[in-house]
Amino acid sequence: MKIIFLNGPNLNLLGTREPDIYGQTTLAQIEKSVTERAAMLEAQVEFRQSNLEGELVTWIQQARERFDVLVLNAAAYTHTSIAIRDAVAASGLPTIEVHLSNIHAREKFRHQSLIAPVCCGQIVGFGPLSYLLAIEAAVSLIAKK
Amino acid sequence: MKIIFLNGPNLNLLGTREPDIYGQTTLAQIEKSVTERAAMLEAQVEFRQSNLEGELVTWIQQARERFDVLVLNAAAYTHTSIAIRDAVAASGLPTIEVHLSNIHAREKFRHQSLIAPVCCGQIVGFGPLSYLLAIEAAVSLIAKK
Amino acid sequence: MKIIFLNGPNLNLLGTREPDIYGQTTLAQIEKSVTERAAMLEAQVEFRQSNLEGELVTWIQQARERFDVLVLNAAAYTHTSIAIRDAVAASGLPTIEVHLSNIHAREKFRHQSLIAPVCCGQIVGFGPLSYLLAIEAAVSLIAKK
Amino acid sequence: MKIIFLNGPNLNLLGTREPDIYGQTTLAQIEKSVTERAAMLEAQVEFRQSNLEGELVTWIQQARERFDVLVLNAAAYTHTSIAIRDAVAASGLPTIEVHLSNIHAREKFRHQSLIAPVCCGQIVGFGPLSYLLAIEAAVSLIAKK
Amino acid sequence: MKIIFLNGPNLNLLGTREPDIYGQTTLAQIEKSVTERAAMLEAQVEFRQSNLEGELVTWIQQARERFDVLVLNAAAYTHTSIAIRDAVAASGLPTIEVHLSNIHAREKFRHQSLIAPVCCGQIVGFGPLSYLLAIEAAVSLIAKK
Amino acid sequence: MKIIFLNGPNLNLLGTREPDIYGQTTLAQIEKSVTERAAMLEAQVEFRQSNLEGELVTWIQQARERFDVLVLNAAAYTHTSIAIRDAVAASGLPTIEVHLSNIHAREKFRHQSLIAPVCCGQIVGFGPLSYLLAIEAAVSLIAKK
Amino acid sequence: MKIIFLNGPNLNLLGTREPDIYGQTTLAQIEKSVTERAAMLEAQVEFRQSNLEGELVTWIQQARERFDVLVLNAAAYTHTSIAIRDAVAASGLPTIEVHLSNIHAREKFRHQSLIAPVCCGQIVGFGPLSYLLAIEAAVSLIAKK
Amino acid sequence: MKIIFLNGPNLNLLGTREPDIYGQTTLAQIEKSVTERAAMLEAQVEFRQSNLEGELVTWIQQARERFDVLVLNAAAYTHTSIAIRDAVAASGLPTIEVHLSNIHAREKFRHQSLIAPVCCGQIVGFGPLSYLLAIEAAVSLIAKK
Amino acid sequence: MKIIFLNGPNLNLLGTREPDIYGQTTLAQIEKSVTERAAMLEAQVEFRQSNLEGELVTWIQQARERFDVLVLNAAAYTHTSIAIRDAVAASGLPTIEVHLSNIHAREKFRHQSLIAPVCCGQIVGFGPLSYLLAIEAAVSLIAKK
Amino acid sequence: MKIIFLNGPNLNLLGTREPDIYGQTTLAQIEKSVTERAAMLEAQVEFRQSNLEGELVTWIQQARERFDVLVLNAAAYTHTSIAIRDAVAASGLPTIEVHLSNIHAREKFRHQSLIAPVCCGQIVGFGPLSYLLAIEAAVSLIAKK
Amino acid sequence: MKIIFLNGPNLNLLGTREPDIYGQTTLAQIEKSVTERAAMLEAQVEFRQSNLEGELVTWIQQARERFDVLVLNAAAYTHTSIAIRDAVAASGLPTIEVHLSNIHAREKFRHQSLIAPVCCGQIVGFGPLSYLLAIEAAVSLIAKK
Amino acid sequence: MKIIFLNGPNLNLLGTREPDIYGQTTLAQIEKSVTERAAMLEAQVEFRQSNLEGELVTWIQQARERFDVLVLNAAAYTHTSIAIRDAVAASGLPTIEVHLSNIHAREKFRHQSLIAPVCCGQIVGFGPLSYLLAIEAAVSLIAKK
Repeated sequence: MKIIFLNGPNLNLLGTREPDIYGQTTLAQIEKSVTERAAMLEAQVEFRQSNLEGELVTWIQQARERFDVLVLNAAAYTHTSIAIRDAVAASGLPTIEVHLSNIHAREKFRHQSLIAPVCCGQIVGFGPLSYLLAIEAAVSLIAKK
Repeated sequence: MKIIFLNGPNLNLLGTREPDIYGQTTLAQIEKSVTERAAMLEAQVEFRQSNLEGELVTWIQQARERFDVLVLNAAAYTHTSIAIRDAVAASGLPTIEVHLSNIHAREKFRHQSLIAPVCCGQIVGFGPLSYLLAIEAAVSLIAKK
Repeated sequence: MKIIFLNGPNLNLLGTREPDIYGQTTLAQIEKSVTERAAMLEAQVEFRQSNLEGELVTWIQQARERFDVLVLNAAAYTHTSIAIRDAVAASGLPTIEVHLSNIHAREKFRHQSLIAPVCCGQIVGFGPLSYLLAIEAAVSLIAKK
Repeated sequence: MKIIFLNGPNLNLLGTREPDIYGQTTLAQIEKSVTERAAMLEAQVEFRQSNLEGELVTWIQQARERFDVLVLNAAAYTHTSIAIRDAVAASGLPTIEVHLSNIHAREKFRHQSLIAPVCCGQIVGFGPLSYLLAIEAAVSLIAKK
Repeated sequence: MKIIFLNGPNLNLLGTREPDIYGQTTLAQIEKSVTERAAMLEAQVEFRQSNLEGELVTWIQQARERFDVLVLNAAAYTHTSIAIRDAVAASGLPTIEVHLSNIHAREKFRHQSLIAPVCCGQIVGFGPLSYLLAIEAAVSLIAKK
Repeated sequence: MKIIFLNGPNLNLLGTREPDIYGQTTLAQIEKSVTERAAMLEAQVEFRQSNLEGELVTWIQQARERFDVLVLNAAAYTHTSIAIRDAVAASGLPTIEVHLSNIHAREKFRHQSLIAPVCCGQIVGFGPLSYLLAIEAAVSLIAKK
Repeated sequence: MKIIFLNGPNLNLLGTREPDIYGQTTLAQIEKSVTERAAMLEAQVEFRQSNLEGELVTWIQQARERFDVLVLNAAAYTHTSIAIRDAVAASGLPTIEVHLSNIHAREKFRHQSLIAPVCCGQIVGFGPLSYLLAIEAAVSLIAKK
Repeated sequence: MKIIFLNGPNLNLLGTREPDIYGQTTLAQIEKSVTERAAMLEAQVEFRQSNLEGELVTWIQQARERFDVLVLNAAAYTHTSIAIRDAVAASGLPTIEVHLSNIHAREKFRHQSLIAPVCCGQIVGFGPLSYLLAIEAAVSLIAKK
Repeated sequence: MKIIFLNGPNLNLLGTREPDIYGQTTLAQIEKSVTERAAMLEAQVEFRQSNLEGELVTWIQQARERFDVLVLNAAAYTHTSIAIRDAVAASGLPTIEVHLSNIHAREKFRHQSLIAPVCCGQIVGFGPLSYLLAIEAAVSLIAKK
Repeated sequence: MKIIFLNGPNLNLLGTREPDIYGQTTLAQIEKSVTERAAMLEAQVEFRQSNLEGELVTWIQQARERFDVLVLNAAAYTHTSIAIRDAVAASGLPTIEVHLSNIHAREKFRHQSLIAPVCCGQIVGFGPLSYLLAIEAAVSLIAKK
Repeated sequence: MKIIFLNGPNLNLLGTREPDIYGQTTLAQIEKSVTERAAMLEAQVEFRQSNLEGELVTWIQQARERFDVLVLNAAAYTHTSIAIRDAVAASGLPTIEVHLSNIHAREKFRHQSLIAPVCCGQIVGFGPLSYLLAIEAAVSLIAKK
Repeated sequence: MKIIFLNGPNLNLLGTREPDIYGQTTLAQIEKSVTERAAMLEAQVEFRQSNLEGELVTWIQQARERFDVLVLNAAAYTHTSIAIRDAVAASGLPTIEVHLSNIHAREKFRHQSLIAPVCCGQIVGFGPLSYLLAIEAAVSLIAKK
């Protein structure tokens, strides 16, 4: 069982900026928790972050050969990128959308996700726990197949 | 740790109708899985379903004295009920919104949740697994307090 | 051949209020005409009215075991209730939407029916005659099956 | 009792094309059924079809001298023609709008009828039965006068 | 002179929750002040609260026989209930809409009242004083008749 | 000086229907007044009416060789016909839009004219006088050239 | 206790024009009733009317030094003047918006008040009684401070 | 026969600025032509211009005692002033809206007139000729009474 | 291989009017080029133009028996005619939409084509070349079958 | 080099009210700073403030003879006044729009400026510094000519 | 004659994914066909693909020195990228927009192209044939110059 | 005092393309003027340009450690990039948005800036002078801290 976690723009700043919205945990710490939890569930994870929309598109394309599930936090691109949506749809990978903050309680332009309609499901608003719940969901999705 | 699960209109039909959208598991089966998983996490759960908006409002109001977390699948009322939103906000209970289907991949009028902005987070699209993930999230929310 | 007629909020006032919009016939009189006409067509009818959205939802759910066709005048809930729409869709019953008044000639918020897309057809604007035409349509729908 | 049935663009193709939407009955067959049913109700009917918006306008204008009720299936012009709406309003004839398919369950631009607000009532979604119900409604409207 | 006060969903929580928006006075205390003020103006009042949209509809229907004026705080249903609007219009009772908070200074979806167009007037934003002003207005409306 | 007056759908009914909106003068009477007034201003007029959008398009195309000014009351097509707009623009003729009724005081869909932006000017709301003022304007436009 | 009543454009015509909307009482008569009622409540009132948006702005600015409460009927400017809204917000005076007619039952452009969000509360639809209720509310607001 | 012409903001600049839109004739020259033409028709005219919305409101109010018809070019206030609309409605004077330029061929925000719905008619796009046509229309309106 | 080219309103004026938008080639010249190119590709073409929406509908209906591909320049009707859209859908003919000008670089109301969703493809903006490219596309579509 | 600074409604309150939005500097202090900075750049400035939309219109009209550049803070009228926009366009003066606060970070109705499209440029959000930057920009604009 | 073909995000997956929408031909195969056809027309082509919006911008900028025509399939960026639009406009190169699928028959957000208004023309919906038609169009555009 | 100037897509073409919109000065020349002016104000500047949204995001993230103020001309990304907005907000750097052209006088989609709400202020429309004014503003912002 191999799961890839892709993280979008500005998530590399996690834990150092705007902690009232995004919390104080860094992306590295989330990666560590996720890896440990995955190990308990006998899954392998890979973790990446990019500020470039096109690089995320490329990674999603490449993922379909090497991974069973994609967990995607596209951050700001969630609301503007049809290219990422198309990549997810084209990849054919079961995809789980996650967000740290509750996007529905923020600015109106963050309420709509262009990517959600081509995902299996969405987990939003639980901070780093969103990622841990996503592993569990991912493992369950793989098991079903 | 006490968690209440409230289910909105038509969820009593689960498993017997429109299985391509909602799956073949009944609400009773979901309740059973949820109770077992909760027991493993040393939490108690209560499960209710109503077709009446106002009854759901009343249950939410009553929940705040007896429960630590509310898990809410308001079904169709998700998109039309300000009364339920107000009850959630007034209850002061940490609330997790769940949906069996991916509401963002369905009709446009199901994309917006009036309740989400007053919840902690949302878990949508994983079928009965959405409920199981919600327990884990609930337990974690209680632990944080 | 068994047909259920469900009537929404304020239809219990029929004949006593706003006769310029809804006519002077009471709901009981409509029920009587409908029963007679049904008898002529060898069909049985049951007639109910509720002001509660959730009670209508429950009645629709229960109807699917005992009736062949549902004739539904959801009145004000026509324009606001996704819960009733979902109940109709879930019931799998052939459903005919009726209205006494021509909803398209009234306030803008009465022009759209949330329920119509999951019905077989709609008959609006003929006063009590709308109900009589609905029986004929219902009998014909049953005959086709 | 004289009733005119006017049919708009493409209805001449009925029964030969897109039978999954419009059914397999031809317009001639509908005319035959309608004529028979009318005869039973001691009414005379006339049946016409045109692809020309302006010709429909002219026929509606002429109808007011020779007919008691107009039954109108304006097809595609239902959603775009103010000219037909004005003709109906100017004719002063009681008018019944009919559609074979359930226009509310199709593309969004078919949901709104510009003509409905100046008609007595609407019957949609019952296939050729829509026309038969319209005769009954027409006879009833004439009887009331 | 008999005046009925109907209160919508969540108003039973008044005084115990979100006091920064709704104040610290309970509904029972408001009822007491209203009763006293009414007595001074030689009017009788009755006070009710329900979380159920349909129950409010029923109470409004019943009020028209026994009361001279209806004072209505439909709370969340103000913005979503055509059924309550229809009940008010059908009741024929002079109706005064009241709100404790200034709905125009809150979320956008609270700015529009579906009920206001069928009321005589509106009093919003003065906390419990809104109810007291409503008695005075009610007595004055009765006096005019 | 040659001026053509083109009249759109339903204007042939003028004077016989809906006199509260369109007045009691017939189109023939208007034509007579217009011809007389034109004679006084040493202009010739031609008067036509059609219910067919395409026929109006053809007449506008033909007018450019034989007339100096076009006076156009496109009636219902005013609000829906890009084809007539294109014909006016292509004709290169100075064009004056007229309406008998004040279209801005009627239904919302009559407020916008698709044709106005390609005309010189608009005269609306004066009944048959609108046509007489148009002659004067037409003569003045020709004089300027 | 000093209260200023500011009245916007066309209110000087009160009682002489459109009595079906605004009633037959003149502004002078309202001022008299208001002054008497105020005297009973030991409050002083000042009454002004202007057709000039900017003059109303200036009066609101000046009021903050000399008055305790502002009662404002901005009439037509209610729906178009951000300048008056800014003046109210800048004045820091507790402000009560009043309207004689029920603005929510009139044209759509009168439904929204730009000023309401910066007022304490709104009283609309009671004719001259709206002003008398406003005094009572004003006195109560002062008493609370 | 007495006719008042009221001109709104920036019309005092006429003839000296933006001649491609508004022409080269000054307001004084228009006044002169209008006065001469009026004299021929045995009518008296008065001509005023103001940049102040409120002053135009006041002049409209005063006009109803002294004039038979109001000709109004509210210029920019045409699209933003409910106060002027209310004044026209309250004045009860037959009112003719005029514009020099074709407002429908300019920026989108100039297409809608808030004043038109309370006028008898509109004449737009003929330059100074718009004013001369308005006299003729005014005289005709007076004659009808 | 037989291809029909249908041309909508005002295209008969091609080459003589507004050459900056539509070029200087006449429709007859386009027909000649098209016929020659078709001959080279061993295809037969027929060329028609009508200003009447309904006539275009009729021609499209008739085309399905005698032609293999429809090339359609519906001109102004592109943006307003559901009737033509329905005819194309009903004909079942592979259809190619062409436009001489780049409709996306013109007025906003020309950006949307009601017909495009039921066509195979669209070629816009290349002047007469659009027609020549359409033949090539048509021949290729036929070859594929 | 002569520059006029025109200030709109409520700016006379600057420094005494809502200092968290507009800062603590008074308009007189801004005028002083501006005059000093202008002197250094060998420019003369004139400073005015009005609450009256029409007075601002008049001042803008008059400015074109006596000044080289207009610096305009129309305050609330920025978002509602077409009259001021027209005056700026008619004046032909190079105009610089300034705002003390960042209007894009405030209420939605302050995001759009009706005046900006006819100005050279905009400087917003720097408090009194916005005015000083405007002088520099003004001097530079004059120098270019 | 040198023509550059630029392809946007996910087009590198062509032929291997979602063949029901995009067909089974790979981008390499399209390049080969295009090169061959170009050779026949004595044109040289260059073919590139990128998932990065900014890289496409850069390539468009560079193209203007080395190529005569740009053929652009911006894929998902078609609907979201003003940057690519600006690059096309700035490049001054005649540009042809192509799409494999008929974007007008897909999701609503694919109907609008931000790039089309700055292109010469558009060819959509013909699969790989769209590219071949584009060469022909390109050669013709160059020939005209 | 260290100030970074970041420039978005296509600004590298400055001075060579579309000079009527963007002027004839190159970005290098602007950098030179800015550096000189900065030196006079004892500030250091760094200047960068990228066509890649994600690279701009990264540069903004890195800027917060090394610079005191960010001056940002995000060009086309101004209107589409939430990612850049989030980077600015996350950086915590005082940010000044600049544009060479007056974006409010151009296409509608350029009127809204997604970035402006998280900036201190905006300077638009002065060509290269916008950048020089920004230095002055930046120095002043640093001085205030």
